Amino acid sequence: MESKKLLEEDMSTPKYESMNGGFPDDDDELLDIATEIAPETASTTSAGSNQPFLAWFRRTRLDASGMSQDDISLQPFLNSCESSTNILDSSEETMLEFGQYDDFHTIDWVRDISRDRLRHKQISRKSKESCWDLIKGTHDAWSGWLCVLLVGMAAGLFAGIVDIGASWMSDLKEGICPEAFWLNKEQCCWGSNDTTFDDRSCSQWLTWSQLFGIHTENAGTYILDYIIYVLWAMSFSVIAVFLVRTLAPYACGSGIPEIKTILSGFIIRGYLGKWTLIIKSVTMMLAVSAGLSLGKEGPLVHVACCIGNFFSYLFPKYGRNEAKKREILSAASAAGVSVAFGAPIGGVLFSLEEVSYYFPLKTMWRSFFCALVAAFILRSINPFGNSHLVKFYVEYNTPWFFFELLPFILLGVFGGLYGAFFNKFNLKWCRFRKKTRMGLFPIAEVMIVTFVTALLAFPNPYTRENTSILIQRLFKDCGPVDDSDLCDYNATYAPNLNNRRNPYGEAGTGVQNAMWQLFLALILKGILTIFTFGMKVPAGLFIPSMAVGAIAGRLIGTGVEQLAFNFPDWILFDEACAGGQRCVTPGLYAMVGAAAALGGVTRMTVSLVVIMFELTGGLQYIIPIMAAVMTSKWVGDAFGKEGIYDAHIHLNGYPFLDAKEEFKHTTIAADIMRPRRGDPPLVVIEQDNMTVEELETLLQEEDYNGFPVVVSKETQLLVGFVLRRDLSHALDEARKAQDGVVSNSRVYFTTHVPGPLDVGPKPLKLKKMLDQSPFTITDQTPMEVVIDMFRKLGLRQCLVTHKGRLLGIITKKDILRHIATLANQDPDSIQFL
Amino acid sequence: MESKKLLEEDMSTPKYESMNGGFPDDDDELLDIATEIAPETASTTSAGSNQPFLAWFRRTRLDASGMSQDDISLQPFLNSCESSTNILDSSEETMLEFGQYDDFHTIDWVRDISRDRLRHKQISRKSKESCWDLIKGTHDAWSGWLCVLLVGMAAGLFAGIVDIGASWMSDLKEGICPEAFWLNKEQCCWGSNDTTFDDRSCSQWLTWSQLFGIHTENAGTYILDYIIYVLWAMSFSVIAVFLVRTLAPYACGSGIPEIKTILSGFIIRGYLGKWTLIIKSVTMMLAVSAGLSLGKEGPLVHVACCIGNFFSYLFPKYGRNEAKKREILSAASAAGVSVAFGAPIGGVLFSLEEVSYYFPLKTMWRSFFCALVAAFILRSINPFGNSHLVKFYVEYNTPWFFFELLPFILLGVFGGLYGAFFNKFNLKWCRFRKKTRMGLFPIAEVMIVTFVTALLAFPNPYTRENTSILIQRLFKDCGPVDDSDLCDYNATYAPNLNNRRNPYGEAGTGVQNAMWQLFLALILKGILTIFTFGMKVPAGLFIPSMAVGAIAGRLIGTGVEQLAFNFPDWILFDEACAGGQRCVTPGLYAMVGAAAALGGVTRMTVSLVVIMFELTGGLQYIIPIMAAVMTSKWVGDAFGKEGIYDAHIHLNGYPFLDAKEEFKHTTIAADIMRPRRGDPPLVVIEQDNMTVEELETLLQEEDYNGFPVVVSKETQLLVGFVLRRDLSHALDEARKAQDGVVSNSRVYFTTHVPGPLDVGPKPLKLKKMLDQSPFTITDQTPMEVVIDMFRKLGLRQCLVTHKGRLLGIITKKDILRHIATLANQDPDSIQFL
Repeated sequence: MESKKLLEEDMSTPKYESMNGGFPDDDDELLDIATEIAPETASTTSAGSNQPFLAWFRRTRLDASGMSQDDISLQPFLNSCESSTNILDSSEETMLEFGQYDDFHTIDWVRDISRDRLRHKQISRKSKESCWDLIKGTHDAWSGWLCVLLVGMAAGLFAGIVDIGASWMSDLKEGICPEAFWLNKEQCCWGSNDTTFDDRSCSQWLTWSQLFGIHTENAGTYILDYIIYVLWAMSFSVIAVFLVRTLAPYACGSGIPEIKTILSGFIIRGYLGKWTLIIKSVTMMLAVSAGLSLGKEGPLVHVACCIGNFFSYLFPKYGRNEAKKREILSAASAAGVSVAFGAPIGGVLFSLEEVSYYFPLKTMWRSFFCALVAAFILRSINPFGNSHLVKFYVEYNTPWFFFELLPFILLGVFGGLYGAFFNKFNLKWCRFRKKTRMGLFPIAEVMIVTFVTALLAFPNPYTRENTSILIQRLFKDCGPVDDSDLCDYNATYAPNLNNRRNPYGEAGTGVQNAMWQLFLALILKGILTIFTFGMKVPAGLFIPSMAVGAIAGRLIGTGVEQLAFNFPDWILFDEACAGGQRCVTPGLYAMVGAAAALGGVTRMTVSLVVIMFELTGGLQYIIPIMAAVMTSKWVGDAFGKEGIYDAHIHLNGYPFLDAKEEFKHTTIAADIMRPRRGDPPLVVIEQDNMTVEELETLLQEEDYNGFPVVVSKETQLLVGFVLRRDLSHALDEARKAQDGVVSNSRVYFTTHVPGPLDVGPKPLKLKKMLDQSPFTITDQTPMEVVIDMFRKLGLRQCLVTHKGRLLGIITKKDILRHIATLANQDPDSIQFL
Repeated sequence: MESKKLLEEDMSTPKYESMNGGFPDDDDELLDIATEIAPETASTTSAGSNQPFLAWFRRTRLDASGMSQDDISLQPFLNSCESSTNILDSSEETMLEFGQYDDFHTIDWVRDISRDRLRHKQISRKSKESCWDLIKGTHDAWSGWLCVLLVGMAAGLFAGIVDIGASWMSDLKEGICPEAFWLNKEQCCWGSNDTTFDDRSCSQWLTWSQLFGIHTENAGTYILDYIIYVLWAMSFSVIAVFLVRTLAPYACGSGIPEIKTILSGFIIRGYLGKWTLIIKSVTMMLAVSAGLSLGKEGPLVHVACCIGNFFSYLFPKYGRNEAKKREILSAASAAGVSVAFGAPIGGVLFSLEEVSYYFPLKTMWRSFFCALVAAFILRSINPFGNSHLVKFYVEYNTPWFFFELLPFILLGVFGGLYGAFFNKFNLKWCRFRKKTRMGLFPIAEVMIVTFVTALLAFPNPYTRENTSILIQRLFKDCGPVDDSDLCDYNATYAPNLNNRRNPYGEAGTGVQNAMWQLFLALILKGILTIFTFGMKVPAGLFIPSMAVGAIAGRLIGTGVEQLAFNFPDWILFDEACAGGQRCVTPGLYAMVGAAAALGGVTRMTVSLVVIMFELTGGLQYIIPIMAAVMTSKWVGDAFGKEGIYDAHIHLNGYPFLDAKEEFKHTTIAADIMRPRRGDPPLVVIEQDNMTVEELETLLQEEDYNGFPVVVSKETQLLVGFVLRRDLSHALDEARKAQDGVVSNSRVYFTTHVPGPLDVGPKPLKLKKMLDQSPFTITDQTPMEVVIDMFRKLGLRQCLVTHKGRLLGIITKKDILRHIATLANQDPDSIQFL
């Protein structure tokens, strides 16, 4: 019976939540779900060894969705999922009780927001009754602010801990502070009295070979340090991947593609859970410390969203309403970027531009507050001891000149090309991992990549050190007291600086060496990141992308600087560099390059520029950054419109309806709706002509999530829409109640029901549960308008009529598949709804 | 026949645009329009003296809408409004030609955006054909960026000119630089060799009495200067009001309420025209120089939008599509704020938060670019000679302490109260002006207010000077070389600063005097602004509101400072101010107060904080500002939810559907739609059962903008919607064509039309012009959902069905009236649609 399968795929069998929070008790089914979502994770466990993994998996997901056995307080609300549900019901109570969705399903924004309005009305009505209710009402009004305050504070705290931990563990690979082992290298050296401290070493800090008593530097100590470095890196990453695999499979990756999907209205239980939060925070430090080519900025956004999810359960207004909860999550993601880059405004714009789907102004204001609180708390913790929020905060003293726009645009081109290159190969690699047996050995993969990374990174000082320190070094302008290789210029003049090199002149051997090493670092980082992003450890893309761009920028910047120094009379340099004046800041080129590369990979625009602006603090440097980011986006878009996050969303088949892409085809609703031409008609319910038994049969035979109700099958005049869950529940209740409703009782979805005087068994009135205002469009509506409606109103489905008669239905999944087909992609890649 | 009047008000008689650009030729009708829009303006001209005014008015409006006789190039596009129009027509050409709306009507976003998609498709199809078409296609793709680039550059240029002009003319009131009369006081004094320059006077700069040869300061010179000051002020403001009244009536006020309305999809011809641009720029300088209590920041946004409108006509993609044009206008308004405050990010957020209605991410990115270019150009012009964009750019060296949050929140309360007070009385005064005969004498009103302002302002040094200089002075921290009264502390210690007062200590007589004068200035400015905002001169609210807040802030700040100095051991000051250390920065209080007062008046949130952040450049000061702005908004909202701009929108009865207000009632579509219960049914067209004559009669008898087409009057099954304009045009054409269509020819809106073999006159096929996908909702749809649809999709009207049958119609005006009724306002205050 193909006819009955029409909407089956979209409206999959609802799984009723039971006491365990919506998880099937059957292990096979659970494994199915686990495999579906994390195929690499689940499939490594062979049939015989399923049990421990499943126990972990279930525990993780139970805990993660805020539903551990300890959370007794949450149980009533979870049980309430089973109670009756009505839209626009006169008994508002029931509606308020309702609200949980099945895992891997899309939420209904319109309904959730209506539910919140109802709840709000109820509370404002009640608050006039008693003093206690007034307090409750006030608490309700303030709870949004209170919640984002808590989220912001916790996000700042977590970021501080992660920063301190990662910095300490990173340095542990090279050595230790014997006097106070809990200090990292920098803090250790603060106590040092060395006058020639050059950020590379101090007497307080001992490398491992020094700790073992070998104080001469020779090949032996080098090899010893090398081996210890690799061993530390391996152990960090093995612990990280093991923790992720066993305790929180959702803690891997950057999390931003999933958060985008969740914010667009998708349910992934446990993705923002407590276990994910804790494990991701810990493994993030480990992965960064292992020296892998990854960052902690993306994962920090995920961690902040987990915090947001956690606190939203303290406030039923948010915890019990998926649409409202997403307001808190939007604010949390702003706080995540705020602490990652010390950029609260950039964080809000990132949330607006990149991750949020529904972002009203009220949410923006709260997000801003949340981001600000998070930044403030982080600054109070002061993890870097420099009173700035991030390691790579910079201030330049020289302005930029107009001729420099040329190299900046060149950097933009590089960024765009790198972004396109990275996205293409990373996706290929991820697809390869998914399809082949390689996905079965995530631990081995992480070990190999770590080994290769550590092996290749140690010899080069620029790859050996933590990537964020490298970025800081590249961004920094050379000052007169800077002894590092990057600032080793031949002091051609200005001898008044006693014994200090002049930071401007012909490149000395130091600079020449540094250029070579940086070039190698560029290639190494560029390639390793492709293999690193997508492994089963927390892995952000911001830092490695920025590092690649910063290296390229510094190289080009130094090149331009040398050109300007050697040929100050060139027409290009004429005005700015006349008389051998210093006119080029290589650090600024590094920053512009970082922005361009990050722009090429993620295709962020405003938020990226604002983040960079907040890092420099100077309005004047926005223009170079903007020029580079614009160029990078255009060049990148020429090779493929998608940023890496959107590409990963597609790769995973998440049902994400992008608001940024424009739909440019001329199809109309009739082309997309089901039933298709030639298929049997839509399964509908007649408003007053079906018996209890007929409906029960319908429910058994059909799998759809809901059914349109019509006046009669002949006229097909639409009356409303009824959800499968509501109908099934109502029929069960009526059967249980035993008040005269039998199998051939008629079911009425109308107000007027024949009185008891009429012959026949007692009728069943179900008008209350009918959604009398389903969204409808005509079959001639252009698809661009339909897509706009789905996006802007947050619809799950929409009924299609022709001359007033019901003709078909369009679901979000139909639209996503249609878009995929038109883009020559496999429509079956859209997996969930 | 009340039945036929059902929708009449909403769908007012269309006025077909003719060669003169949509203006009625009849002077009476023109006067009507003029009176309706600018009643005060038009009504002063008595019946006999209408002609000159009308000539001006027409010229202004013609020119302003980009339609002067010189603009031959624009004529074809204007004429094209008369051509046939179809939605979803197979002949896309005709649709592209269409697109003008009548004055004071609302645009149809969905249709305009569809038109742009069609146009885009056509161009991309063509661009494959020839090289020239490829160039045209590329130009089209880049035209958005090019347009915002031009707008940004022009906005920066205009802002620079206005800044320089206003600053020069302001100083002209007090004196002149005889050596170079084109320099303002500050520039004049730069050339001075005086070592004791204290920003108040220098030997190069001569007051008027000095110029007349009187070099002693006595009562006589004081009175002479006083009189000249008042005379200059009077002349400036009289010229300003005269120019506005005669040349560009739309140039008055701040313009922000109207721009919000225009961006929400309303047409006000000439509001953004060339004449408005020029006259507003000139009169803005005059009004500021007159010393009136107003600012040029709001008007700069209006000027920037005029520039945006002007340049959009260079690109048919924008100039010929009202919805697309609004993208440019959004970017322009961001540029306006950017140059007003030197805050490009704040400008973008202002555009997003306060003025824009439709603000997709692409527009945001372009707005950012536009704002940045404008800021860059202004910085290159450097109107203040300080390399910053604004007069009141500040940097503080001392941090703020936690205890200070208490006074900051106090300032927030003050700001909220002031905002509520100001909004209430300003609205009362505006309503009074509108209702009484006072509105008939705008020139006299301006003269009186200027006279009173100048008279009261001169004796007080803080009100005598330009308000933005006052704000700068109040924001500034006292340095050791600061000689002004505000920094006159008794030097209690630190004698190492030779002959300079120490900027911290017990308040000296200077500070005490300044406090008194500031207090008087606070009262004066607070009251005068109420009467000034709404007069017939360009008048912004930002600067006077900020000035009031800054004065209050400085007063409180100095108070706290003195407390901390005198009682450093108080528990509150204990940690921060121990040992007499300086712990309070009164300038910061002024800045926080300014933000709070502005927040109270406008109810801006994120954008205000970001603007203030960009003024200070320090992340750390965001927290005090945010605390004050939040408090101010909450306190203000307690007295009335509306900001001043929204209040003025309501006052003027513009059809603005606010996206910020939540609809909290339980009404459903059936309660709002027309026809109401008991009224005769909706006027409809049957799809295949009406003759040409019947339709012509219908068009004559009914005034509606469009008619639903149904299968038959009995079934009321909806087929589509046809616009009055299209139908009328098609019938005319058919009559003219003389190809057999006669009065009793049947009109078919169906695909299947009886063949020529059938008996009867030749049928007329009009299916092409039928909109087959009108938006429909059921009568049970909750109004909150309906309002959401109107807002998010930009609808003009929506058809209401019940069980598939057409029941009624809801227009934007119906919704606005419904909201007004529920808010206990007069529904008839909503004037236009």
